[in-house]
Amino acid sequence: MRFSEVFAPTLREVPAEAEVVSHKLMLRAGMMRKAASGVYTYMPLAWRVLKKITQIVREEMDIKGGQELMLPIMQPAEIWQETGRWDVYGDEMFRLKDRHGREFCLGPTHEEIITTLVKGDVRSYRQLPLRLYQIQNKYRDEIRPRFGLMRGREFIMKDLYSFDRDEAGLDTSYSKMYDAYTQVFSRCGLQFRPVEADSGAIGGSSTHEFMVLAESGEAAVVYCLDCDYAANTEKAECLPVSDPKTTLLSMEEVVTPEQRTIEQVAEFLRVTPAQCLKTLVYVADEKPLVVVIRGDHEVNEIKLKNYLKCIQLEMASPETVEMVTGAPMGFAGPVGLVKTRILVDHAAAEVQNAVCGANKSGTHILNVNYGQDYKASAVLDLREITTGDRCPRCSGELKFARGIEVGQVFKLGIKYSKALDCKYLDETGKEKPIVMGCYGIGVSRTMAAAIEQNNDANGIIWPVPIAPYHVVVVPVSVKDQLQREFAEKVYQALQAAGVETVLDDRDERPGVKFKDADLIGYPLRITVGAKCVAENVVEVKVRRTGEELKFELVDFVANIKDLLNKI
Amino acid sequence: MRFSEVFAPTLREVPAEAEVVSHKLMLRAGMMRKAASGVYTYMPLAWRVLKKITQIVREEMDIKGGQELMLPIMQPAEIWQETGRWDVYGDEMFRLKDRHGREFCLGPTHEEIITTLVKGDVRSYRQLPLRLYQIQNKYRDEIRPRFGLMRGREFIMKDLYSFDRDEAGLDTSYSKMYDAYTQVFSRCGLQFRPVEADSGAIGGSSTHEFMVLAESGEAAVVYCLDCDYAANTEKAECLPVSDPKTTLLSMEEVVTPEQRTIEQVAEFLRVTPAQCLKTLVYVADEKPLVVVIRGDHEVNEIKLKNYLKCIQLEMASPETVEMVTGAPMGFAGPVGLVKTRILVDHAAAEVQNAVCGANKSGTHILNVNYGQDYKASAVLDLREITTGDRCPRCSGELKFARGIEVGQVFKLGIKYSKALDCKYLDETGKEKPIVMGCYGIGVSRTMAAAIEQNNDANGIIWPVPIAPYHVVVVPVSVKDQLQREFAEKVYQALQAAGVETVLDDRDERPGVKFKDADLIGYPLRITVGAKCVAENVVEVKVRRTGEELKFELVDFVANIKDLLNKI
Repeated sequence: MRFSEVFAPTLREVPAEAEVVSHKLMLRAGMMRKAASGVYTYMPLAWRVLKKITQIVREEMDIKGGQELMLPIMQPAEIWQETGRWDVYGDEMFRLKDRHGREFCLGPTHEEIITTLVKGDVRSYRQLPLRLYQIQNKYRDEIRPRFGLMRGREFIMKDLYSFDRDEAGLDTSYSKMYDAYTQVFSRCGLQFRPVEADSGAIGGSSTHEFMVLAESGEAAVVYCLDCDYAANTEKAECLPVSDPKTTLLSMEEVVTPEQRTIEQVAEFLRVTPAQCLKTLVYVADEKPLVVVIRGDHEVNEIKLKNYLKCIQLEMASPETVEMVTGAPMGFAGPVGLVKTRILVDHAAAEVQNAVCGANKSGTHILNVNYGQDYKASAVLDLREITTGDRCPRCSGELKFARGIEVGQVFKLGIKYSKALDCKYLDETGKEKPIVMGCYGIGVSRTMAAAIEQNNDANGIIWPVPIAPYHVVVVPVSVKDQLQREFAEKVYQALQAAGVETVLDDRDERPGVKFKDADLIGYPLRITVGAKCVAENVVEVKVRRTGEELKFELVDFVANIKDLLNKI
Repeated sequence: MRFSEVFAPTLREVPAEAEVVSHKLMLRAGMMRKAASGVYTYMPLAWRVLKKITQIVREEMDIKGGQELMLPIMQPAEIWQETGRWDVYGDEMFRLKDRHGREFCLGPTHEEIITTLVKGDVRSYRQLPLRLYQIQNKYRDEIRPRFGLMRGREFIMKDLYSFDRDEAGLDTSYSKMYDAYTQVFSRCGLQFRPVEADSGAIGGSSTHEFMVLAESGEAAVVYCLDCDYAANTEKAECLPVSDPKTTLLSMEEVVTPEQRTIEQVAEFLRVTPAQCLKTLVYVADEKPLVVVIRGDHEVNEIKLKNYLKCIQLEMASPETVEMVTGAPMGFAGPVGLVKTRILVDHAAAEVQNAVCGANKSGTHILNVNYGQDYKASAVLDLREITTGDRCPRCSGELKFARGIEVGQVFKLGIKYSKALDCKYLDETGKEKPIVMGCYGIGVSRTMAAAIEQNNDANGIIWPVPIAPYHVVVVPVSVKDQLQREFAEKVYQALQAAGVETVLDDRDERPGVKFKDADLIGYPLRITVGAKCVAENVVEVKVRRTGEELKFELVDFVANIKDLLNKI
């Protein structure tokens, strides 16, 4: 392609609307434009990237027995009412009415419609398993769309749904998809980790998220340097830590005027935060609840919520704290709180001769010991994993990182097939619910994540497999006939060899063309100057490393191909 | 692919919901399912067909300098309000509001948004021409969605928009697209005609529709057997016909009690309908108007409306007819109607000594002659073309046919660039509006049209280039190990050679499998029976012709490939 014919209007200025680097660079590189808040046009260069990602996804789904189809974007309300999600989704779902007043939504996901489809057309075990997928726009009316393609309102997803006879079948489908996803993100040239994750509201028993590692990632992940373990910190299990045993002393009240936070109390009493207990009052589905963790730890509310199986969970108001503990905030402790349910984190229960609030204003207690001085309805893992924690699988060293979620695999079980009455007849003629899984890849998000992971101050650095083009050929001066001809020759040779190449044929200063090349992020740039022409040499610069190489004109194509395979 | 693993649930019954053959067959072949009125799921086999059509479209657009991008489906109301189409579109446009109450529509077409995009990013003549296209879902809230994919509410379109410096540029873009469309439908293996069409409400000066010829087509088309002329009958020009000259006689009133229609009058007066004048009263934008055509002709209201440049055109009520002519309906004539504007069709003006109504109940006039006995504000082409008419270009013989519109190319001119202020600076630094064209292909409609054109009582007959698979291999009995192995060998050999093949590995009676093969419409069926196995022969049946061929196993693959190229 000649750059003069590509619609890639680059910008010098950093657009004010953009907060994250992928958004800034895609706007500047002429790859996307905003149509409305969270709604974007993918410009030709971005669309090439998306087609490449799509093709990789498609091939890997097909290898695992996926069959591509296309479900409607516009879905009738009735099926969502059947599963109860018409109400659950609330304002996040875009809704509309047709001219006859019938209600529809723009699909945020497709469990309802595909389960209804399979219900209508599958009768027998012989028709299972089925793995059906599509790649299309999804819609979510985010309160605050932001970060460009990272959290849009119209975005491209691949969603596959598996239908199996039983749990064993689901395990097979799940593991095939897990492998397929690993292949997809590897083939895209991305650094990523599949991590154990919380299954949240969508239901189901097991789930992994695929995280592209990038400092700008919204999610915190942790992975083991010694084994395969990796998890979202929302989910990461914490091993019980045991303190060295010592003599248990008797409780003793101390006056701690105005010392409310763990830090204040620890300093005042000359102990470490790890010797203190943090006592937090929550309200779960309108019932108060006390949670005790070690002073240097944080509560993981997802673990708490999953254990409680509650719908609403929030921190108690100061009034409720006072009602539960009898003291103002800052002086709560588990001792003597017999009327309220108490949950204690493993690590907190291990602290010997701990410090905690006395449920009296300006007062704490020393030498508090679990079992002796207070009890709980359960001792369990309730905290966020933190530096110093060891791998829950192999006790190896853990590494913390940030990630962008680009895919998720889910075991749904029979949640939707039960709600929508999607059954089959087994070998013995018995009716059974079909066992389902669902598996999503954020296609447009993957493009953005690739940029978040691969960029520098000058622009994007595309991984070769998803680069819009592989090579840009830049004649220093198109007014120079020799350079123009040499560049044309190089361009034609690469095109003929199947290397996707752009010839920057614009009559612009070389600086402008180099800046655009770096911004757009072609993996390789070939510069054609007077010296190259004179010496019959092709001068290549690697975008990622800045490395410069020279090849003889006679065999440069093979060398370029090698180079593309290597980087 | 093994058929046992394909989600293609075929049906024996003809579904009640389907009116046209493409809809019936796609439902029966397990290729589509209804999600809501006019909203469908494309099942895996149909999706394969759509991907093939899409790929052909994409390649042909790219060859002509098209750049693919992706505009949002969800479009903000503001840009539609700027062009005034937010109101014009009325109930046909799906509208919705986001959580903040902002209005959006689901794009029925994308002139507004792409013109806004180009306006924002194009400054200079050096950035033109641009030909930008996308392939995506479009939305139209039809009053009465019907005919399956022929008139759905969610459907797949390719829409390309051209942006040129001037009319000459537009002519080039238009002619490139005309050629590309010709290539697309040829490569899809369809019989079609590009026909001159009326440009209607979308505006613009020139337009062609691409019609797939099929008896079930909604549109009537006419084409010349001697030259390239072809037109929608809505648009087809009628040559003036000159009657043999005779002596003009004087007018004479005759009593014609209760003889109101042309047929009644002609029979009563023993003349042919062609000797009569049909006088029709219309109301155009609230003004009455008289139209005179020959008794055996029909008014073409599109020609009439285009000439009048009116917004509303309707037949007058009996009261208005009486007010205009002074007589009840059935006795109108142009003679003496001096207060009302009269338009006369060419052919009517040529009739000598004609019969027409006398504007008096139960009375007609004989020997009426244009010019002598009545005059008109214009004599022009106002009628539908009809059998016996000659080609307006070469006077050759015309053929009438029915067609399904699958594509349309349009010269928009500066309609949208003016409304949305989309300009560029020319070589002299002068601001000029960008000259636009738009070009649509109904992708899902093309699939349906292909079926309307290619089917028989047993099912679909896919043209090879868009068939979901090329060959189905049917072992007569999968319980027979030899047959099973032979079929597998044939299947593997074809797959290895890149022939897209389905192996019908189901344990079903051969009749069931043959019926499904015919229904789904694979171009070739290979039947593996005991005799073939014994003789090492591959038995092929051509779906379209029923022709049966036998090839030696040793070189059957090359023969199958030849056969696919031929049919």
